Amino acid sequence: MNVEHFFPDNIKVALQKTPPGAWMAKLPEECIRLSSGYPEPALVPAEEIKKAADLLIEEEQDLPLHYLGSPRLAGLKKLIQARLEKRGMKVQEDEVLITAGACQAIDLIARTLLDEKAVVAVESPTYMEALEIFQNYTNQIITIPIDEHGLQTDVFAAQLAERKQSGLTLPNFLYTIPTFQNPTGTTLVPARRKHLLELADEFDFLILEDDAYGELSFNESPQPLKAMDTNGRVFYVGSLSKVVAPGMRIGWIAGIAQFISAFEWFKKDLDHPFAQSTMAAYLENVDFEKRLASLQKAYRKKCYTLIHSLEQYFPEPITWYVPEGGYFVWVKIPGVDTSHMLEQALSMGVSYVPGKYFFFNQQEGTEFLRLSFSYADEEEIVKGIQKLGQLFSSIM
Amino acid sequence: MNVEHFFPDNIKVALQKTPPGAWMAKLPEECIRLSSGYPEPALVPAEEIKKAADLLIEEEQDLPLHYLGSPRLAGLKKLIQARLEKRGMKVQEDEVLITAGACQAIDLIARTLLDEKAVVAVESPTYMEALEIFQNYTNQIITIPIDEHGLQTDVFAAQLAERKQSGLTLPNFLYTIPTFQNPTGTTLVPARRKHLLELADEFDFLILEDDAYGELSFNESPQPLKAMDTNGRVFYVGSLSKVVAPGMRIGWIAGIAQFISAFEWFKKDLDHPFAQSTMAAYLENVDFEKRLASLQKAYRKKCYTLIHSLEQYFPEPITWYVPEGGYFVWVKIPGVDTSHMLEQALSMGVSYVPGKYFFFNQQEGTEFLRLSFSYADEEEIVKGIQKLGQLFSSIM
Repeated sequence: MNVEHFFPDNIKVALQKTPPGAWMAKLPEECIRLSSGYPEPALVPAEEIKKAADLLIEEEQDLPLHYLGSPRLAGLKKLIQARLEKRGMKVQEDEVLITAGACQAIDLIARTLLDEKAVVAVESPTYMEALEIFQNYTNQIITIPIDEHGLQTDVFAAQLAERKQSGLTLPNFLYTIPTFQNPTGTTLVPARRKHLLELADEFDFLILEDDAYGELSFNESPQPLKAMDTNGRVFYVGSLSKVVAPGMRIGWIAGIAQFISAFEWFKKDLDHPFAQSTMAAYLENVDFEKRLASLQKAYRKKCYTLIHSLEQYFPEPITWYVPEGGYFVWVKIPGVDTSHMLEQALSMGVSYVPGKYFFFNQQEGTEFLRLSFSYADEEEIVKGIQKLGQLFSSIM
Repeated sequence: MNVEHFFPDNIKVALQKTPPGAWMAKLPEECIRLSSGYPEPALVPAEEIKKAADLLIEEEQDLPLHYLGSPRLAGLKKLIQARLEKRGMKVQEDEVLITAGACQAIDLIARTLLDEKAVVAVESPTYMEALEIFQNYTNQIITIPIDEHGLQTDVFAAQLAERKQSGLTLPNFLYTIPTFQNPTGTTLVPARRKHLLELADEFDFLILEDDAYGELSFNESPQPLKAMDTNGRVFYVGSLSKVVAPGMRIGWIAGIAQFISAFEWFKKDLDHPFAQSTMAAYLENVDFEKRLASLQKAYRKKCYTLIHSLEQYFPEPITWYVPEGGYFVWVKIPGVDTSHMLEQALSMGVSYVPGKYFFFNQQEGTEFLRLSFSYADEEEIVKGIQKLGQLFSSIM
């Protein structure tokens, strides 16, 4: 049997790619994971989630084990609406869709809005999973460079104007992580946020705002684009993966109702009622503001430990951005192809993500790497950076 | 802002449809649900799942709350492989993909194999959610009639030969529920199973075998198509929704590795580690054969109660198939449009699913309805059929 010929042409193309993150799932236990964008194990509320699952089944018996049985499913949406309101976004029930984490949210939006004729704009660099998802639908990807103030809206404006003049298709949407960006840690400054929304109106595109890290600020969380959006152009994607637990897979999309109901159509039964109702039971019984404050404090401390270690152990020509929140520090190692050094780093017992994976055109990312201060504890962070410092010093 | 123009053309078409099951989610508490294809609440092991969640977190702490943290994720696959082997299917680790229920499995297969040029063959009638899913990808659907022995393979053979002769596209795959079919309750007889696999070879198509009900036999479970498949043409889709709990959303695809890795590519992070590892902890500590035997006994009893009530309360010209397993009884009410009677039935406090929803060409299904004996208890079943008997007697 010829397996190949059962796949449509566009699927054949998608299948030729190798998932960049395959090696990351296979790191040995003792490796210091400066690659992992996961919360620190000690900061995951395992015991509280256990209690929530107990409470849930004691109170509801079999209800949460049916498709739509638990009254807490509606409750979870209300709890999320309340959190959105705290960040300046007042949205109605039919303007929110709960998803299996931010990834399902991004996939649903892509699936509903993209075909092979569509164009998507992304930051360069950007979240690698999102880049993979978009490429499953279209190969027409526009990239916009990032500097320390986030996406360069002037460059984007020029690209849009040029495309319009040349009669090229304008982007259907821009995918952006304006706050504590993955992988650069940068935050889009207020003037550029305003500019971006103006561009969306002028060139008639939508904005997919990924705010997975927005609540993990070291000082103050900036206002999301969605909170400034008066025309319904922004889909806001949020998640509890970074602030509660990724394995619970709770995310959401907030946007105008007409889009939300379209996304819902394609989501169908891809819900996970047990995890959702357990999460609702957890959220009901936690002082979330207090939890956030302690997470912010913990990650700030870990970040500064990492930055301090970089200053101490990394040789002169290496530079990085100092983030104001989130999980990541973006490092430039001039003249070095970081993907070639990974194997050596792993053999020394420390991991990072080579920068190229975050670029549509991978050649642009060879000199960069992403460090995460989220998963490893402070002692490991110091040790890991020391090892990487030795490695890079030896070749510079 | 013009929302419409952001959607690709094929998506606009898909969005014009109304989900047929929308009313089902909104049934009042006191309604006797002969519409629901859910397990009976008393048969859902809520207390054991609570214990499993407790055990999981006691033993693994935060591990199952990360993306890929729990060793039980690999364990779940092994448990599923062992169950498949019991049904005559020996599959390797890379030949199984765990999904969020059968629906995600069907969606992944459709997404990977279909585009608008592709043709899909389905039984008529068939599972409505699958029909909806396929129509999100293509409108080229071939339907094959069912009789009391399942899909009519002779009719299918003639359709295939005619398409081939006319130079029409042959189906990429056939979607079939050969055992205790939804909605008809019928089971494909062995000779037709053999014929079907021969047709797949002759006309070079794949078979998506949905076996969600296969273990719920009243006497003996027939051999799945997959167990007879020597050429790798069958994707076997299974689920724990009917035998454990639908809200846990655990299903799987078993098939040759080249297809499984393609489906996995599009699945990406759409996993639900907490539910999966909880399910693994549950399965480790349950005597599943014993559980199955008691479920089979319970559903057989409920089925016979329903059949007996039909004989007692439904007027003469009405007919039905007597199933040998599963959840459903398919009823023909000659000369009556069952969708017109639904509102009256609901006002009497009993629900069913009008037959038309299970047909690609809905006109073919007006005289039918699907009754489920799974969710309601025996007392409710008798009361519900009595009410429906009154209703139909009054108009015949």
